[in-house]
Amino acid sequence: MIRIRDVGPRDGLQNEAPVDPVERARLAEALAAAGLRDVEVASFVSPKAVPSMAEAATVVARLPSTPGTTWWALVPNARGVELARQSGLGHLTVTISSSEGYSRKNVGRSTDEAIDGLADIAAAARGADRVDVVVSCAFGSPFADVTDPTPTVAIVERTLTVLPGASITLADTTGTATPRRIAAVVGALPNDARADLGLHLHDTRGTALTNALAAIELGIDRFDTSVGGLGGSPFAPGAGGNLATEDLVLMLHDLGYETGVDLDGVLEASRQLAHLVGHDVASRVSAAGPLPEFGGRT
Amino acid sequence: MIRIRDVGPRDGLQNEAPVDPVERARLAEALAAAGLRDVEVASFVSPKAVPSMAEAATVVARLPSTPGTTWWALVPNARGVELARQSGLGHLTVTISSSEGYSRKNVGRSTDEAIDGLADIAAAARGADRVDVVVSCAFGSPFADVTDPTPTVAIVERTLTVLPGASITLADTTGTATPRRIAAVVGALPNDARADLGLHLHDTRGTALTNALAAIELGIDRFDTSVGGLGGSPFAPGAGGNLATEDLVLMLHDLGYETGVDLDGVLEASRQLAHLVGHDVASRVSAAGPLPEFGGRT
Repeated sequence: MIRIRDVGPRDGLQNEAPVDPVERARLAEALAAAGLRDVEVASFVSPKAVPSMAEAATVVARLPSTPGTTWWALVPNARGVELARQSGLGHLTVTISSSEGYSRKNVGRSTDEAIDGLADIAAAARGADRVDVVVSCAFGSPFADVTDPTPTVAIVERTLTVLPGASITLADTTGTATPRRIAAVVGALPNDARADLGLHLHDTRGTALTNALAAIELGIDRFDTSVGGLGGSPFAPGAGGNLATEDLVLMLHDLGYETGVDLDGVLEASRQLAHLVGHDVASRVSAAGPLPEFGGRT
Repeated sequence: MIRIRDVGPRDGLQNEAPVDPVERARLAEALAAAGLRDVEVASFVSPKAVPSMAEAATVVARLPSTPGTTWWALVPNARGVELARQSGLGHLTVTISSSEGYSRKNVGRSTDEAIDGLADIAAAARGADRVDVVVSCAFGSPFADVTDPTPTVAIVERTLTVLPGASITLADTTGTATPRRIAAVVGALPNDARADLGLHLHDTRGTALTNALAAIELGIDRFDTSVGGLGGSPFAPGAGGNLATEDLVLMLHDLGYETGVDLDGVLEASRQLAHLVGHDVASRVSAAGPLPEFGGRT
């Protein structure tokens, strides 16, 4: 079983013009209905900093309590943890960057300061169901300060010192990962990081699907994707969208992997998303449609 | 060594508004200068049927005789063979389809009639340096008549009866291939088809790069790509562009495969192409740029 967390209602919509929180909750609900067991639905950040993520609590309040679905929220600091917990969410994503330059651009802090912030989050999150630390620029950075696995390994080690029970998700923020680079980073990680390791892939150079399949061959079975392939980062030039949920699901199903996800349901959510954002989505499968059947033994 | 044939000046430009033959020759020359040892430069078809491929002989006459570069021309019939040979080209591509429906739409002939046409081509091509038969819809068809490897295997067998010395290139005309489907078809081919077997991949569903790498693991070392990812078929709904040369080259080089191709040179040709066609190209690498360095042992 490959586990897919759809980050579309958060990472996907973050770079779009603001969408009504009721519609954001409906999109999350459609994804859950399509079988996504993990959906990142909100970001408890300052609405001044990220207007499109305003009214996170309203989004969460509108979510159905779908059995088997876990709703995740991004929290930037201890205050965000409090707000998320007040809204009833205990599955929290936190970002930290392998790149000093990206950390300063994205959150205005050095990585040292960001690690200190993680300690505050750890204190506030005590008792949370789960904290997943998303390590951005894990495979390279637009600031030329992640040129081998060393910075990522160091950040992961420091993260697990501060948050020993956290899961780790390595993010290819600017789409510079390749199967070789993923193998190099994953192979250099400490064992406790590999216990629950995920990948968050961007498709900047059209490599995201290839990277996902190569990662599966390394034993990684958890991926962040975004319905429609929406996403990107305003602080990473040319970041490109996330790996599209429907593109990964189509390929995995053809190869015989189970995901628990219904492709037609994701395609329906993708159409809903295109309507919400007012433009075509990046997903190629949403544009071209599902695969016709093709039998034959390999 | 992975051998890449750039089909941009033919398959790429075929679906665009006509481009001056001198510019088409310049594009081919830029590709050769970038290290492409095989470039498909022209199509000796009726200019009434495909206006953008008119003046094929003018294109060929403008080509430099670059040592180590092989110029290919598509020929639809014996007359096309004569014209190509008169222009001085002896490396010929011929298409035939696994799909009865596509054959009728694309060339107005049943596959039986198309096989008869191959026999005429074989007679005319005697003494040509090389005939490469490109089998379209090898992994599926928009007409629901290629639903397992059987039609493709049958067409390849019949082709090799008529043209025993030909090489075979399997084309994923509508982007329905997956690593599983490629393994199923390749595994079912007769041995003589595997002696010089290539793939011609389209990126309709964003799977082309993944398919190329999976094919390399099966031992396939020859690929058709198109600079910029241009291409498609007017007779295959939603065909999508070819796998972009620069996208494949970037990935192969990062993984340590040799291609003899200079990525920067291809990116320069891709910019030239975008200028010629007057719109952005599909290649993600052309949009995002090359990869930063990333060391580390796997």
